[in-house]
Amino acid sequence: MDTTPFTSPHYVHGYSADEARRLGDQADTLAALLHAGTAYPAGGRVLEAGCGVGAQTVHLLDSGPGVHLVSIDVSGDSLAQARARVNAQRPDARVEWHRADLFALPFEDASFDHVFVCFVLEHLKDPEGALAGLRRVLRPGGTITVIEGDHGSAFFHPESPHAHAAIGCQVRLQAAAGGDALVGRRLHPLLAAAGYDDIVVRPRTVYADRTRPALVEGFTRNTFIAMIESVREDALAAGLLTRAEWDRGIADLRRTATPEGTFHYTFFKALAVAPR
Amino acid sequence: MDTTPFTSPHYVHGYSADEARRLGDQADTLAALLHAGTAYPAGGRVLEAGCGVGAQTVHLLDSGPGVHLVSIDVSGDSLAQARARVNAQRPDARVEWHRADLFALPFEDASFDHVFVCFVLEHLKDPEGALAGLRRVLRPGGTITVIEGDHGSAFFHPESPHAHAAIGCQVRLQAAAGGDALVGRRLHPLLAAAGYDDIVVRPRTVYADRTRPALVEGFTRNTFIAMIESVREDALAAGLLTRAEWDRGIADLRRTATPEGTFHYTFFKALAVAPR
Repeated sequence: MDTTPFTSPHYVHGYSADEARRLGDQADTLAALLHAGTAYPAGGRVLEAGCGVGAQTVHLLDSGPGVHLVSIDVSGDSLAQARARVNAQRPDARVEWHRADLFALPFEDASFDHVFVCFVLEHLKDPEGALAGLRRVLRPGGTITVIEGDHGSAFFHPESPHAHAAIGCQVRLQAAAGGDALVGRRLHPLLAAAGYDDIVVRPRTVYADRTRPALVEGFTRNTFIAMIESVREDALAAGLLTRAEWDRGIADLRRTATPEGTFHYTFFKALAVAPR
Repeated sequence: MDTTPFTSPHYVHGYSADEARRLGDQADTLAALLHAGTAYPAGGRVLEAGCGVGAQTVHLLDSGPGVHLVSIDVSGDSLAQARARVNAQRPDARVEWHRADLFALPFEDASFDHVFVCFVLEHLKDPEGALAGLRRVLRPGGTITVIEGDHGSAFFHPESPHAHAAIGCQVRLQAAAGGDALVGRRLHPLLAAAGYDDIVVRPRTVYADRTRPALVEGFTRNTFIAMIESVREDALAAGLLTRAEWDRGIADLRRTATPEGTFHYTFFKALAVAPR
């Protein structure tokens, strides 16, 4: 999930300074929800596997000052954006950047104390294989932290089969691309199959209603609904819904972000240990 | 939702003492999740509206010793069971029992400091009307606590459309009876429409995997799946699913309670204030 509106106000175009500040507050809200409990000790070698455009990198730096952070991504473009973002927002931070494939990690065995993976498994054909490869580069007793969403956790008021159908388009398109938008619920079995010990998975739930306008705007509208809307052309081209069905679904989703609406979404956060 | 396996080990038949003790531990787990934060000061007049068979009454007594508890239910049979349960489990507790209709409360205006409602709105044709009536008997500034489930929050691994279809039977049958198994997400708009102030709704999420065997057995299997299975005959009689479809759905649901499975369910807890 691209949680950009939450994780970097600077990455959102077309907003005034006031709006950017407000989005920054929202960013803090979701970052606090997702990153709470993750703080690596100074001197530890931490691998951020699949850093994308660096949305989480700044939070890793904030919660673990003094770590030796190595951030990798398979996309050179993303890596360049991540580097620029970190240079702009945390100019004193030292990050080692590598363009690298999760399935061919250019690191020695047992060369990291901790691995951090966020919104990455959802895009992979073989998430278990990726986790097994990450286990290889973790020292025995080292930890992996995994954060993923699960679109099956999205429910809302007013209830609407049309809205669920629109969400279903995103799920089906992601599946067709080899990913799994429902991966959050699978974190425990995936980590177990990949050979980790002491696996603990906990839900991290976002619930938004009119008493939490920052979450309604920042999460329901600008993160979740915006993400569903982004697959419109692909969904219509694939014939998953008619144009009228799609428009009805999006209109119904938007009603969940009005003062009468409510919205629920669950992220899952896992912590597991490489065998000693 | 009948959470009996969690809320009273004494009410479960056919278990050994060891099993009863273990179920008692599980009962504590869910009760802690649902009741955390609810503790009424001594001397306060508390109305438990729709006490059913008293599953929550004992927890109210435990978390608020010294309250003046008035518990009502529309069913004389349920009320008798609740009274017997409390007499057996909390023999020193004083509870005032009334058989009464939520829509014709036999109490003066502003005669309670607090109202507690748990797993009741889901059964009502007019939950907003019930909440408005409860507001009448609350003193200005008094609080209402509402706890409800939402079956739309049930998702699991392995994913299965057959399992969702079986759950859908329960939702449709409850709707046909005038209730709403998806009421949890509506607590904020319902309380707002009923005229309450300072409404705060938060999810209380149950997530079970093999690392939490008590929740797998006590919640996934013995509470949630057992509840869905209880509507089998009604679902088949209504033609909602074929026998084969039903059996497939239940078999798939049971896979979520195996060591490879995971299960997620969200309760909602609301606190709101009668206008001052």
